[in-house]
Amino acid sequence: MISLDKVFSYIDSAFEAHLEETRAFIRQPSISADGTGIQEMAALVASRVCELGGEAEVIPTAGHPVVYGHVDVGAPSTLLVYGMYDVQPVLGESWRVPPFSGEIVDLDGFGPCMVSRGIMNSKGPLAGFFNAMQSLRETAGTLPANLKFVVEGEEELGSRNLPSFVRAHKTLLEADGCFFPFYSQDLTGKVVMYLGVKGLVFMELVARGGSWGGPTTRDVHGMNAVWFHSPAWSLTQALSTMLSQDQKHILIEELDDMVAPPSAEDMALLERLASSFDETTQMKDYEVERFKYNLRGVDLLRQFLYRPSLNINGLVSGHHEEGMKTVLPHEARAKIDVRLVPDMKPEEVVRQVRRHLDRRGFEHIELRVQSGYPWSKSSVSDAANAPMLKTYQELGYEPEIWPLVSGAAPFYLFTQELNMPIAMGGLGHGGRQHSPNEYATVEGMRQFEKSAAAYVVHFANHFAQRGAS
Amino acid sequence: MISLDKVFSYIDSAFEAHLEETRAFIRQPSISADGTGIQEMAALVASRVCELGGEAEVIPTAGHPVVYGHVDVGAPSTLLVYGMYDVQPVLGESWRVPPFSGEIVDLDGFGPCMVSRGIMNSKGPLAGFFNAMQSLRETAGTLPANLKFVVEGEEELGSRNLPSFVRAHKTLLEADGCFFPFYSQDLTGKVVMYLGVKGLVFMELVARGGSWGGPTTRDVHGMNAVWFHSPAWSLTQALSTMLSQDQKHILIEELDDMVAPPSAEDMALLERLASSFDETTQMKDYEVERFKYNLRGVDLLRQFLYRPSLNINGLVSGHHEEGMKTVLPHEARAKIDVRLVPDMKPEEVVRQVRRHLDRRGFEHIELRVQSGYPWSKSSVSDAANAPMLKTYQELGYEPEIWPLVSGAAPFYLFTQELNMPIAMGGLGHGGRQHSPNEYATVEGMRQFEKSAAAYVVHFANHFAQRGAS
Repeated sequence: MISLDKVFSYIDSAFEAHLEETRAFIRQPSISADGTGIQEMAALVASRVCELGGEAEVIPTAGHPVVYGHVDVGAPSTLLVYGMYDVQPVLGESWRVPPFSGEIVDLDGFGPCMVSRGIMNSKGPLAGFFNAMQSLRETAGTLPANLKFVVEGEEELGSRNLPSFVRAHKTLLEADGCFFPFYSQDLTGKVVMYLGVKGLVFMELVARGGSWGGPTTRDVHGMNAVWFHSPAWSLTQALSTMLSQDQKHILIEELDDMVAPPSAEDMALLERLASSFDETTQMKDYEVERFKYNLRGVDLLRQFLYRPSLNINGLVSGHHEEGMKTVLPHEARAKIDVRLVPDMKPEEVVRQVRRHLDRRGFEHIELRVQSGYPWSKSSVSDAANAPMLKTYQELGYEPEIWPLVSGAAPFYLFTQELNMPIAMGGLGHGGRQHSPNEYATVEGMRQFEKSAAAYVVHFANHFAQRGAS
Repeated sequence: MISLDKVFSYIDSAFEAHLEETRAFIRQPSISADGTGIQEMAALVASRVCELGGEAEVIPTAGHPVVYGHVDVGAPSTLLVYGMYDVQPVLGESWRVPPFSGEIVDLDGFGPCMVSRGIMNSKGPLAGFFNAMQSLRETAGTLPANLKFVVEGEEELGSRNLPSFVRAHKTLLEADGCFFPFYSQDLTGKVVMYLGVKGLVFMELVARGGSWGGPTTRDVHGMNAVWFHSPAWSLTQALSTMLSQDQKHILIEELDDMVAPPSAEDMALLERLASSFDETTQMKDYEVERFKYNLRGVDLLRQFLYRPSLNINGLVSGHHEEGMKTVLPHEARAKIDVRLVPDMKPEEVVRQVRRHLDRRGFEHIELRVQSGYPWSKSSVSDAANAPMLKTYQELGYEPEIWPLVSGAAPFYLFTQELNMPIAMGGLGHGGRQHSPNEYATVEGMRQFEKSAAAYVVHFANHFAQRGAS
């Protein structure tokens, strides 16, 4: 039986050295967008698997490689750790410390924080997890569960090669549950636990001149708008048929037919969630002055979590820089996405968007699917999440549980392709992901390591107990 | 009486030297967008006025200066020459010769051409006009008419300071007619004569988050599209209410009430124009496969010339570069323009666009007017255009006369503010304005000089005859 107290004391005593280990991850840039430092970072992750007594391999994909690792201690259960070693670019951003320095800065209201790209999302938690496992080995001589690692280098590019990797390596990835290390405390210290994520279909609509009309190869003089068709108008018109003017209703009606109502368990969790959910904080965080809907509490949450969204991520056409230039553009593009809730299927969504366009006279608008994956849901009582909840409670936190979040992630790969539950979590607080001055509190980084160690112990116990019963 | 034959012979004998004079204009870059060479170019234009025995002044404006010149030979009539000394940028373009070299290249089908930025639009014709006037002086000892020059440095920026300059210098600019030097022959050698231009209102529609909804200060995570409003959707919806889906009808209905039908003179010119107008060439030139309207000949021309257009010049919002990024944009912009035909008034158009948005629930969309000026029309029999027609006919060309063109230019400054007719023209052929490898044929440049000299002689005779009658 592993004594968590001993592990926690060890983490406290070794924490300065652990910070240096985390800094080693941070100081190695690993920008998937342009490939900077990708190979070096993959090697660094692999080396930490080996330091736990395991074996690691940097496996090529069509894009950046996946680090696969296996630490087989002969335990009855195996935990698959999912992570990413890539980070967002920093180009053009203004930081108060160099973005790959791992410097510690006293941030107003947070105390000492490590400020660097990737410290929150998500090399900080990944390094902390390795530190926690090393602490378990030091104090108990072994690990309570076997570990497998699948650490990708393209999460910030939409995990584009992860699906084929997972499908090609199902046996290699066999495990009893999956864990994604993540700082889960908000600004106030509250622990937030997410059981599911939405799916996503990311598409580009491209309107171009052709046999339907409009200039086919180049932008032409704007005076011609009076007698030639315009792809920019066509795209605008097509988009406007997809959402009601009050922006409350998606007008691709077939999408609604796929939406399932929340389960009884979900509704119960939603009711509980509503008691701690604060609309005003949400508006303040995002600097908006009102919601689309005149709803509050559980009704607003249900709208947020159990309804699909249709979003315009970006628009571009013609002359859009400063100043005047009159052109009739030959092309107009919109990047749109639909977020999927149970039981929506990506292929079916794409089919219905196409059908919607065709029926309304927009056959000439090209629909390019850039990414598509389904939603994923786990349960608070499953083998991945029950140990997580126990960990939080034991450390004195009653988490706020979200049965689903509006964010999208390809967790279906674990829940649907590999048939295992997935938990994401750990103590700790960070912020400004994808922005300058991304940070994590130093104290949170310490607490994260303790929670990660406790989690793996409880995960192993979950199976030991089940085996004994 | 000036012998045009002598003048023409002189032009032929001096043409190599004239090409060098034109090259001097071309080799001095004068990019209004970033200010490159503007002062030097203005000085160069002023020096050519002085070489004609006149006086010139580089007059500052809120932007780039205007070159004002006056050659007073004590003649009974005065011609005001309007021109521009600025050119479009060449940044990022790929040219077959350096863009400010003035090099002569044998272009397929055209023979020797000067290939350089500004040779067509419009330093070539301006330099040619100076060469022509110098030839008149050399052969006749004087000029047949007094000349005034107003040469601006911001035409490529929308002539933004020309209106206030003209209004502030009405007495200085007094003249009997205005002339804009321009190569008027098309690919086939046909001379095209334009009597009028459309007006223009260039506007930017800016949708931003605010009290109506949506993120107010920054793009936020795309998952929030399910419960926050989107400025990108709002802009799209607003635009789509302005034009029918078939793009044939502007739905800002009040605009129609301002449109006057073509006059009887215009209809007669249209009928004649239709006989030489070729729809197929138009489609080929612009690389489009069809018109918006199933019309031909005079009906299509009437649509082209006597209907206003509502164009989207550019759209931009959120993440529009390569790759995936899910954001709910806090801002979306559209650059739109309305081209004005008789009797539309810019202020009234702006008012109706605003009214249209407000009535349909888009009060929150900001309308920024970037430029606005009315249409302008002259007559084929007026003091500026009758000498132009006579010049062409005498040189053996029967021009194709357009009572109006779809292009916009602030000629109202001359016709409406200064109360004088304006003619644009001259022989010569060039192309690729605003594009790489802008060119003019060398033979056309020679013919331009002859036609410009003949024009000024006929302009002076027009008044001499009138005075004598």
